[in-house]
Amino acid sequence: MALCMLYHGMVIKFTCEYDGTDFCGFQRQKNGISVQQILEESLSGIFGEKIVIHASGRTDTGVHARAQVCSFKVTNDKLEISGLGRRMNSVLHESIAVRDFQVMGDDFSARFSVKGKKYLYRCYVSQSKSPLRDRFALQLYKSHDIASMQKAANMLMGTHDFSAFCCVRTDKEDKVRTIHELRIESVGGEINFWIRGNGFLRNMVRIIVGTLLDVGVGKISVDDVYAILESKDRNRAGKTADARGLTLWCVEY
Amino acid sequence: MALCMLYHGMVIKFTCEYDGTDFCGFQRQKNGISVQQILEESLSGIFGEKIVIHASGRTDTGVHARAQVCSFKVTNDKLEISGLGRRMNSVLHESIAVRDFQVMGDDFSARFSVKGKKYLYRCYVSQSKSPLRDRFALQLYKSHDIASMQKAANMLMGTHDFSAFCCVRTDKEDKVRTIHELRIESVGGEINFWIRGNGFLRNMVRIIVGTLLDVGVGKISVDDVYAILESKDRNRAGKTADARGLTLWCVEY
Repeated sequence: MALCMLYHGMVIKFTCEYDGTDFCGFQRQKNGISVQQILEESLSGIFGEKIVIHASGRTDTGVHARAQVCSFKVTNDKLEISGLGRRMNSVLHESIAVRDFQVMGDDFSARFSVKGKKYLYRCYVSQSKSPLRDRFALQLYKSHDIASMQKAANMLMGTHDFSAFCCVRTDKEDKVRTIHELRIESVGGEINFWIRGNGFLRNMVRIIVGTLLDVGVGKISVDDVYAILESKDRNRAGKTADARGLTLWCVEY
Repeated sequence: MALCMLYHGMVIKFTCEYDGTDFCGFQRQKNGISVQQILEESLSGIFGEKIVIHASGRTDTGVHARAQVCSFKVTNDKLEISGLGRRMNSVLHESIAVRDFQVMGDDFSARFSVKGKKYLYRCYVSQSKSPLRDRFALQLYKSHDIASMQKAANMLMGTHDFSAFCCVRTDKEDKVRTIHELRIESVGGEINFWIRGNGFLRNMVRIIVGTLLDVGVGKISVDDVYAILESKDRNRAGKTADARGLTLWCVEY
């Protein structure tokens, strides 16, 4: 790797992977350990000054990330970028790791430059709990009708007002988002939901999955899903599926 | 499920899945919590008498099981078999779950009736640690030559004296075992070793994997592996690969 010294004010982007099980989510909270706190403490220790990081967005308590993206501004110029990842990983909590540090233009922000995101929601079908899968997937007790779920999923694709699929506690006024991909795959007793879009409201992925799972057991019909979308009423959609099954797969810039 | 009352002396077989990360292995130890202790305490609580279980074999500290098989003798006859799994799972440690309880003939023993076992050893290739995979897979820092590893693996298939691939601390005198399957698959930055045989010596799977990984980076040659097998000398084989990557996949009876 070419030698690249950091200087004051440079914007650095990096990727962060975490097992969210033991965290209160990405964002700093008063009660609980957040991923942000751990990353900022590590970076601040290295730079000898307080570092504030920005991420592509929050993830909720218990949600995982394969490739969360963060950025921060360098506060001193004594360091070399190639050593940052190694230094951080050698001391970070075992559930967090960082990689792919790179210098960006001054106008880059991990939060505001986001073009889209992709999530994976994993489920497994089993009468008894599966400790080898339970950390990263939701247990379903009975088989689900994949074809019906995919039909309902197709109705949610495209650009819509997703008010019905958004946690009522949100600070976002504009609830219009575009879903580019909403694909359900069923392999060996596991059901995976792949969702890619230009942005997601609070709990949106988990409410969509909860609603599609209701379709899969015939609790609501495929047509109901379109009516729910039109209603913009959160109370008509399904439950918010458990956080453990959700992984932020990647962020597009 | 048909009603099936248990009576004193009946032999019951069940399957147990566990994330071995936090246990000192399957077998009871003085220092540490074992899977056996947790299962026996749960069953003893249900039966109101001390229950001793037998498993298909030990698994070492940190090794996982998708389908370990256990058996025990019923000590009283007030219970119904269909409720056992549910009662146990409702109180068991979150890293352990049980399933598939069934009544066996009096001569069945989870330990002595074993015909064969299958293991999966998982690795992932990445410069930085991957918290989403690190619990159940070994991190490799560079790519490995899969074709060479498979050639060396083929030499180990069949019936051999596996003294060179056995921990020196063992109580087994006969070191001859038969490997029916030793298949290496490489998918998306992950390398999986599938090993099936009629029985395995202490640390045998992990030493085989450690040795094949040495072949994969050119540290030892394919021909060396046959020489190591012939030598019956543990010191010539590779390192014992870390426990975290190993999962007891299933047991054949």
